[in-house]
Amino acid sequence: MEAVNVGIVGLGNVGSGTMAILAENADQIALKLGFRLNVAAVCSPSVHSRQIPAGLQRSLKTTDWREVVDHPEVQIVAELVGGTGVAGEIIDAAISRGKSIVTANKELMASCGPEIWDRAIRAKINLAMEASVCGGIPIHAVLREGISGDRVTALYGILNGTSNYILTEMEKRGEPFAAVLAEAQMLGYAETDPSADVDGFDARSKLVLLAALAFGEKITPSDIFVEGIRRISPMDFQYAHQLRHTIRLICAARQTQEGLILSVRPALIPLSTILAGVNGAYNAVWVKGMYGEDTFYYGRGAGSRPTGVAVVSDLMRVAREIRNGSPERVSPFAHERLGEYKPVSVTLQKRAYYLRFRVDDRPGILAKLAGILASKHISLEAVLQEPCETKHDLPFVITVEPTSEQSVRDAVEEMSHLDFLREAPLALPMETAL
Amino acid sequence: MEAVNVGIVGLGNVGSGTMAILAENADQIALKLGFRLNVAAVCSPSVHSRQIPAGLQRSLKTTDWREVVDHPEVQIVAELVGGTGVAGEIIDAAISRGKSIVTANKELMASCGPEIWDRAIRAKINLAMEASVCGGIPIHAVLREGISGDRVTALYGILNGTSNYILTEMEKRGEPFAAVLAEAQMLGYAETDPSADVDGFDARSKLVLLAALAFGEKITPSDIFVEGIRRISPMDFQYAHQLRHTIRLICAARQTQEGLILSVRPALIPLSTILAGVNGAYNAVWVKGMYGEDTFYYGRGAGSRPTGVAVVSDLMRVAREIRNGSPERVSPFAHERLGEYKPVSVTLQKRAYYLRFRVDDRPGILAKLAGILASKHISLEAVLQEPCETKHDLPFVITVEPTSEQSVRDAVEEMSHLDFLREAPLALPMETAL
Repeated sequence: MEAVNVGIVGLGNVGSGTMAILAENADQIALKLGFRLNVAAVCSPSVHSRQIPAGLQRSLKTTDWREVVDHPEVQIVAELVGGTGVAGEIIDAAISRGKSIVTANKELMASCGPEIWDRAIRAKINLAMEASVCGGIPIHAVLREGISGDRVTALYGILNGTSNYILTEMEKRGEPFAAVLAEAQMLGYAETDPSADVDGFDARSKLVLLAALAFGEKITPSDIFVEGIRRISPMDFQYAHQLRHTIRLICAARQTQEGLILSVRPALIPLSTILAGVNGAYNAVWVKGMYGEDTFYYGRGAGSRPTGVAVVSDLMRVAREIRNGSPERVSPFAHERLGEYKPVSVTLQKRAYYLRFRVDDRPGILAKLAGILASKHISLEAVLQEPCETKHDLPFVITVEPTSEQSVRDAVEEMSHLDFLREAPLALPMETAL
Repeated sequence: MEAVNVGIVGLGNVGSGTMAILAENADQIALKLGFRLNVAAVCSPSVHSRQIPAGLQRSLKTTDWREVVDHPEVQIVAELVGGTGVAGEIIDAAISRGKSIVTANKELMASCGPEIWDRAIRAKINLAMEASVCGGIPIHAVLREGISGDRVTALYGILNGTSNYILTEMEKRGEPFAAVLAEAQMLGYAETDPSADVDGFDARSKLVLLAALAFGEKITPSDIFVEGIRRISPMDFQYAHQLRHTIRLICAARQTQEGLILSVRPALIPLSTILAGVNGAYNAVWVKGMYGEDTFYYGRGAGSRPTGVAVVSDLMRVAREIRNGSPERVSPFAHERLGEYKPVSVTLQKRAYYLRFRVDDRPGILAKLAGILASKHISLEAVLQEPCETKHDLPFVITVEPTSEQSVRDAVEEMSHLDFLREAPLALPMETAL
């Protein structure tokens, strides 16, 4: 049977992984599909034959993405450029030429996903975006097809490999955030400007996509509360371990009586939960369903070849659809607030909290802090203090019984004015029920 | 848009979960599909209105499955009867009437899957079988679509919930196999005849399906070495913990230099691996890919509603395909041995092994056992002995360095004739590299 022809735009990390798999795994791909995937054209800003694996050398090589999109044989355009600039133009052009699209672009899909899907449906093309979130984990296939009959009640994820690497290294070696970050930057695991990773914005884009898919609700980045990991210190892991917990940057989307509560923030999770076993640069997604109960998905969150697997699997699916004459017909994204899963403020959530203080020790400190908690109707659960040599900058921890995030914020705000505090209290939710 | 009509045959555990979800989740299903799923006919040996959820009462109720298959409105037949008898007839009849099929039948698919898929393809219908393996885990969607671009090199699974429940309870409470099994039977977690579960045959059927999907190779039950969990005792967990391992019934399919090695057997796995965190009746599948590296999938292995989610998700996928006019065109099963992943005997595998002995103590025992190991060119790694009060029935463990399964079998066979042994040595592979 005749091949389906693919055009690749972008030969960076993901693009080169995609090309390698298309070349090396061509026979097995053909066996699974019943026809071959052929790379008809490739574009990158400085395209060289040595970037093209043996077996794909006959493809058109160009530095102008328009030549790929306009190529008469190309049926599927793989947009592997990233970002919200030229990538958007490439997708626009492909749609208007009636060519199907595979994209690895989480920023673009998180910001314009619903509009892009709509235009794809009107143009009767296929669109696939598995590679845009969680690299090697086929979470889009899972949410859109695998468990589509379920009604998701909660989704928890570890979605940023860099942050997870930094936290697990801090935990293992007891070294401070800044030192581990610097090392991660040296090793190429973290960017020179690490903000997108360590301040939670990358994870937020991913949660926008996963929550939209899981709940069928319109989700925008501003619906999601974000807090990064910069304030976590090795002593927080010591205290967390005393409580039989650890600390991870947790992306959470939960249906509650108040509505859908969305957050990306460091949280305490029990050491006994399977999420606590997600170490290093791995990603994981935990889905709770009304009917299917717990399912859990784990894999490489990024990387050239794991993300390449997602792109190639998407190319295969879209090629099958093209052969079947089956365009996309229903967007996985909602345009309107459907109401059932309306996002609400994280301040409505009820959780136990971990409050960590650094104080200049003097009599009456605990009484003062406990008094503020009591004035907000927050019940104290435990007070923990690791041995410490100094009276200045003395750390200790108070855990409180489940209460609203708003009460905790009010208490933290009032405490922040106390002159014996070295810094504002660090408040982390405890996801004890995971 | 007009509904797609479904006929349900079988209102047992899976059928009733399926019906409940189709009724309760009807609106969200319609939202995701763009049209409704309607239950036009239902069959069970003693069909009562009270088995039918509110909202589905208008469906035809019959005790004759032919009425469901012949029903002029039914477009998809859900075969939820199980077994290889009448289920096969139902599927035959549906195919010959050009109706699409969703099945939860692992026995039938493991024994006749390739033939059934072939006939479905020739009849231009759709066929889906997510519910046939790993209940609530969408592993079929993952292997067939989600990571289809990858080349799987190994697959490890915990695929039998009953065995896993028994092993984790033995581990937790230190109670013997027979006692935990009896309790599981009383609680309804194990069948009166537990053989299919505890002797590994149920897990073997599942591994036939998963390995066929993962490797694209023809796999039959006789390709898979099976050993059950009856010989595992609480002391084995004590020794395993000393080695920082635990014991689980591991289904393994691994590509090696010798070929594809398939087994279902109790094995030692490191406590640090994420598989060791799979407790109770949960199932899990770990896939290693040449490009995507490790991915891991976890969820309920059985149960009315988790398996119902798989059936409903399949009904949704097939309904979409019917709307698209997209019949199945390539079987996920191979008919011929393709060669690349040819199954070979487990005796070729190289592993470290755990050998556990029960002896009547006397001088010279270790020398004798070590002599036999040496004669098979097997290197001893460690000797472990827990404190024990009796000289009769004294347990101890020898671990050996990686060697071939054949050598270990030869050694065990020779040891079995020694008069100081209370029973033949128990030999378990150590999956240390997981």
